[in-house]
Amino acid sequence: MATEAADRVTMDKIVALCKRRGFIFQSSEIYGGLASTYDYGHYGVLLKSNVRSEWWRAMVQQRDDIVALDAAILMHPRTWEASGHLEGFTDPLVQCLGECKKRWREDHLREQQPEGELRCPECGGELSEPRQFNLMFKTHMGPVEDDSAVVYLRPETAQGIFVNFKNVLQFSRKKPPFGIAQVGKSFRNEITPGNFIFRTREFEQMEMEYFVPPPDAQHWHEYWMEERMRWYTDLGLRPDHLRLRAHGADELSHYSSATSDIEYLFPIGWSELEGIANRGDFDLTQHAKFSSEKLEYVDSATGERYVPYVIEPAAGADRAMLAFMVDAYDEEEVEGRQRVLLRLHPKIAPVKVAVLPLVSKDGQPEIAREIYEDLRERMPSEYDAGGSIGRRYRRQDEIGTPWGVTIDHQTLEDRTVTLRDRDSLEQIRIAVDHLSDELERRLAAPWRSPKLG
Amino acid sequence: MATEAADRVTMDKIVALCKRRGFIFQSSEIYGGLASTYDYGHYGVLLKSNVRSEWWRAMVQQRDDIVALDAAILMHPRTWEASGHLEGFTDPLVQCLGECKKRWREDHLREQQPEGELRCPECGGELSEPRQFNLMFKTHMGPVEDDSAVVYLRPETAQGIFVNFKNVLQFSRKKPPFGIAQVGKSFRNEITPGNFIFRTREFEQMEMEYFVPPPDAQHWHEYWMEERMRWYTDLGLRPDHLRLRAHGADELSHYSSATSDIEYLFPIGWSELEGIANRGDFDLTQHAKFSSEKLEYVDSATGERYVPYVIEPAAGADRAMLAFMVDAYDEEEVEGRQRVLLRLHPKIAPVKVAVLPLVSKDGQPEIAREIYEDLRERMPSEYDAGGSIGRRYRRQDEIGTPWGVTIDHQTLEDRTVTLRDRDSLEQIRIAVDHLSDELERRLAAPWRSPKLG
Repeated sequence: MATEAADRVTMDKIVALCKRRGFIFQSSEIYGGLASTYDYGHYGVLLKSNVRSEWWRAMVQQRDDIVALDAAILMHPRTWEASGHLEGFTDPLVQCLGECKKRWREDHLREQQPEGELRCPECGGELSEPRQFNLMFKTHMGPVEDDSAVVYLRPETAQGIFVNFKNVLQFSRKKPPFGIAQVGKSFRNEITPGNFIFRTREFEQMEMEYFVPPPDAQHWHEYWMEERMRWYTDLGLRPDHLRLRAHGADELSHYSSATSDIEYLFPIGWSELEGIANRGDFDLTQHAKFSSEKLEYVDSATGERYVPYVIEPAAGADRAMLAFMVDAYDEEEVEGRQRVLLRLHPKIAPVKVAVLPLVSKDGQPEIAREIYEDLRERMPSEYDAGGSIGRRYRRQDEIGTPWGVTIDHQTLEDRTVTLRDRDSLEQIRIAVDHLSDELERRLAAPWRSPKLG
Repeated sequence: MATEAADRVTMDKIVALCKRRGFIFQSSEIYGGLASTYDYGHYGVLLKSNVRSEWWRAMVQQRDDIVALDAAILMHPRTWEASGHLEGFTDPLVQCLGECKKRWREDHLREQQPEGELRCPECGGELSEPRQFNLMFKTHMGPVEDDSAVVYLRPETAQGIFVNFKNVLQFSRKKPPFGIAQVGKSFRNEITPGNFIFRTREFEQMEMEYFVPPPDAQHWHEYWMEERMRWYTDLGLRPDHLRLRAHGADELSHYSSATSDIEYLFPIGWSELEGIANRGDFDLTQHAKFSSEKLEYVDSATGERYVPYVIEPAAGADRAMLAFMVDAYDEEEVEGRQRVLLRLHPKIAPVKVAVLPLVSKDGQPEIAREIYEDLRERMPSEYDAGGSIGRRYRRQDEIGTPWGVTIDHQTLEDRTVTLRDRDSLEQIRIAVDHLSDELERRLAAPWRSPKLG
C-alpha cells in the first residue's frame, strides 16, 4: 500500500513524543514501573478527555434514543457466571520448562510457529502443557477473605449495562430500538500485554448496547458499522487507514452471531479499534436465567413481549487516542528546519490556541495576558512566554495546537495580532476584538486531514 | 439552627428521588445488590459529570499553575509501602462472639458506647479482641498468584500524583507554587460503609496536590480553604449549610501537620465533603527514600533546592453530587398541587432545557423538534411529548431542569414560545430566534439558591 510506505510514523516515535511532551508516562516509573499500565500526563488527559467527550456527544447528547449509564467496576460475582466470563474468559497459558521459565500464550506461539512442537521463543526450552488462565482480576470484598467474599474487577463495561436493562427501561420511557451508553475502566489480566497503550491490563472502554426488535438486528448492525466508521473519519482519521473486517466463523465470541472490527493501520499493522457485534439475545437471556428476573420488553398497547437483540459498538478510548495520534503525526522541513507536528482535528486537540507575546517587554505580556484570559473562558488555551518564538511554535506543533496568536509591537498600536495556522502555516493579521469569534468559527468548521493531500 | 428545622429533606427522600428518576441504582440489583457500590443512571451520570467538569474548569482550565494527570488505578506495590498505607491504612475490626457473628468497627462502637465493655449492638453478644484490618483491596497481576504479584486497588488518587512529581515538573516547566490535579476512582474496603453514596467502597475523588516553598505553606493552606469554600457556594450551596472545621491534634493523619474539613449539613448531620491538608514534605520525602529518586525542586538560576510542601484539597465527587442534590431538594405547593424539585445551579443541572409541544398535532411536534435539534447542539436538552403538560413540567422539576420551552398554537403563527423558569415559575413569551442566545445568557449569569429567600 502506498500509504504504508509513505508514512513516517513508527510506534517508537509516538512513544518518544508522548514521553517528551508529557502525554503518557510509564506507571509508577520511579519504582521501575508496573507491567502494562500507564499514567496520562497533562496533554494526554486533555486529549483522551476530548475523545471521550466527542463519543458522548455523538452517542448521547445529539440523539434521542440513547441514555447514559455508569455502573460500578465491582459487580456481583453472579454477573460473571451468567455472562460466561467465569468459565470461558481465559487464555491458554504455557510456561517454559527450560532455562528462562517465561510464560506465553499458546495461541500466539502457534501463530508464530505454525508447525511442529512449540518451543520457548526466548530460550528454545520445552513448554508445559497449556492451562486455561482466567483474565479477570480477583479480589475480596469485606473483612473476610473467603470464597463468599470474592469479587472481580470487570473485564468489560457491557455487563453493567445488561444487569441494569430493566431499571433503565423503566425510568427512561424508551422502547426498542434504544441504547444505553457507558464509558469507564475495565481490567484484564493479560498474559502478554504490549504495544504501548494498545493492549494494557487497565484500560478505558466506550461501549453502547443498542436493544432492538430481533427481526431488525441485521439492519441495526449495518447501521452502527456505518455510523461508527463515520465517527472516526469525521474526527479526521484518514479513510484509507481504516477498514471494516468481518470476523470469520472461528473468531466469533460465544455470544456473537456476527461481529465486525473497525481496524486502523497502526505502525504494528492493521489492528482492532472497535468491535461491532450482534450479541443476539444471549446476555439478557443469561441474566434472566441466573437472576430469575424477566428481562424483556413488553408493549403495553399490544401486549407483545420479546427479548431484544443487542447490537454493541465497543470501542477502546486509549486505542482511539493512539490512532488519532498516529494518524496526526507528521514531520516536515520548513525553511531548512525540521518540525514534528500532530495534525489533530481541532475538536480533539488538547489545546486550541496558544497566546505568545513576541518579547517579554514593552507592554506585550500585559496585552497577551488579557487576550489569553479572555480566550480561556471559551476554549482550552495556553500562554507561553518562554524562549524564542520559533521554539514556542514547535512546542505547540508537537502537541497539536491548531492556532497560535502572536502579540507584537503593532498590537499595542492597532490591537491586531497574528493568527497562525498549524497545518498551512498561513499567518493572517486579525483584530483582537474578532479573535475569539474567528476561533470559534474555525473550531466548528468541518475539517479534513492535510495528510490526505 | 433555623435552617435545620425548616429543611424538608431527608436521606430517604433523596434515595427515593434517585431511584424514581433513575439517578442512582443499587449495583447489580438483579442479583441482590453488592454492599455499598452504586450504578449511576442517565441523570446521575450527567449530574456527576457536570460536577467533575466544573471542578476541572476551576482547577485547571481557568488557571495557569495547575496541570492535569490521570494515573492508573493499579500502581506498583512499593508505592503503598512508602506512603504508609500498607502498614497504617487500617481500621480496628471486632467480631461478635455471640449469636449474630457480625463485624464492627471498634472505634465507631466506642463512640456510641463511651463507657464500659463494648457489646455487639445487634445481639448484645461479647466481642472479639480488635484486629487491624487493612482497607486496601488486594489482587494479583500476571499469571501467578504469589506474593511477588500482589498489587492493590489505590485507596486514594494522591499517590499517583506524588510518584509522577518529577515527570510533571520536568515536562510542564512549572515551578512552585504549582499543582497537579487528578480525578478518578479509588477503592476502600470499608468495614461499615453506608449512608447511600456518602461512604462507599468504590468512589470517585477529585484531588489536587499543590507544591509550594515550605515557608509559604501556611499561606497556601489558607488560600485553598477559601478557594474551595467559594467553589461550593459559587455552584449554589447555601453558605449556612457549609462550614470549615479544623482537625484536632488527635484526628490528624500521620502525614498531616494541619487539616481542615469542609463539612456540609447533610440530613445525617455535619459531614465531610472535602479535606484540605497540609501534608508537609512527608510524601515526597518518603517516595524519595523508597525509590532512591531525588524528588525536589531545583532552581536552575540560583541553585537553590528544596523538597516542596504539599497543600491538598481532596474532594469526593459522589459526596459533592449528594450535597448538591440535598441542597437543591425542595417541595412546595403550587395552585393546590405539590411539586418536588431540585433547585440546582443551571451549570450543574443534568438537562438545561426541555422542549415541550403542548399538543401532539397541528404542526406543533414538527416545530418543537426543530427547536430542540437546534438547542441540543448548544446545551444538553430534552424533548418530551408524553402526557399532560403539567406532568411533563413535574418530571423536569424533579431532575432540576432550569428552563422549559412550550410550543403552542401561537408558535406556528408568530414563532414565539413560552419560556418557563423552574424556580420562579415565571413564564415569558420569547421569539424562537432569540431563544438559544437568551438561554446561553442565563446559563452564564451568576446564580444563587432561591432557598436562601
